[in-house]
Amino acid sequence: MSQWKQIQQLDIKFLEQVDYFYDDTFPMEARQVLANWIEGQDWEEAANHESMATVLFNNLLIQLDRQCSQEPNFLLRHNLKRITQQLQMKYKNNPVQVAVIISSCLREERRIIALASVQEQGPLEKSMQN
Amino acid sequence: MSQWKQIQQLDIKFLEQVDYFYDDTFPMEARQVLANWIEGQDWEEAANHESMATVLFNNLLIQLDRQCSQEPNFLLRHNLKRITQQLQMKYKNNPVQVAVIISSCLREERRIIALASVQEQGPLEKSMQN
Repeated sequence: MSQWKQIQQLDIKFLEQVDYFYDDTFPMEARQVLANWIEGQDWEEAANHESMATVLFNNLLIQLDRQCSQEPNFLLRHNLKRITQQLQMKYKNNPVQVAVIISSCLREERRIIALASVQEQGPLEKSMQN
Repeated sequence: MSQWKQIQQLDIKFLEQVDYFYDDTFPMEARQVLANWIEGQDWEEAANHESMATVLFNNLLIQLDRQCSQEPNFLLRHNLKRITQQLQMKYKNNPVQVAVIISSCLREERRIIALASVQEQGPLEKSMQN
C-alpha cells in the first residue's frame, strides 16, 4: 500500500497533523495525483544534488501536465493546471527547494504513520514489546 | 439547470475562457460546492451596499464551513478548509470586494454561455432569426 493510502486511512486527529504541513509550498492535490510516482523518487538525494533536483523537478511538471491532460473533471483539471503553473513559477530557479519540501513532507508523513501505529497498539501489546 | 451546470457542459474552447478568470481571488472550488447558493444571492446589489456585502460574506464563510465539515474526502476537505481561511483573511476588511468579484464571475459566465449558444446555432437558424 502506498504511503499516501496509509495516510488517508488514519484517524482524524492524525489527518489534522497532515493538513497542517500541506499548503501552497507544495499542494496536497499534487501529492495525491502523483502519489506513487512521488514515492518512487529519491527526494532526499535530490535535496543535496542540484542536477538531480533539476531533473526531478522537470519530471514532476511533466507528470502533472500529463495528469492534467487526462483528467476528465473540469474543476480538477483547472486546479492541476494552476498548480503546475504555480510550481513552475515558484521553483524554476530553485528546484532544490522542491526536493527539500517534498522529502520533508514524506518524512513527516512517515513520522505520523509511525505515531498512529504506536498509539493504536493497546497497553498490553506495548508492554509485551518492552 | 444551474448556471454552473450549464458552464460545465460547454465545449472545451469556452471552458478555457472560464478557466482564465477563476484564480485565487475567488477559487473555482468555492464556486462549485456552493453553486446553487451563490446563484441565489444578489451579489450585484451587495457590491453597492457594504452592510449587505458583510452579511453575504459572513454567510459565504458559514456555507463553506458547513460544506467542509460534511465533506468525507480528505483532500477536498483540506482544500475547502484552506479556501475558507484564505477568503476570510483576504476579505475580512473588505467584503464588498468579494461581492464585486463574484458578481463579475457570474456575469462573465453568462456572457460565455450566451456566446456558446450563438455559436452553436447553425448559419440557417441564424439567418432565419435576422
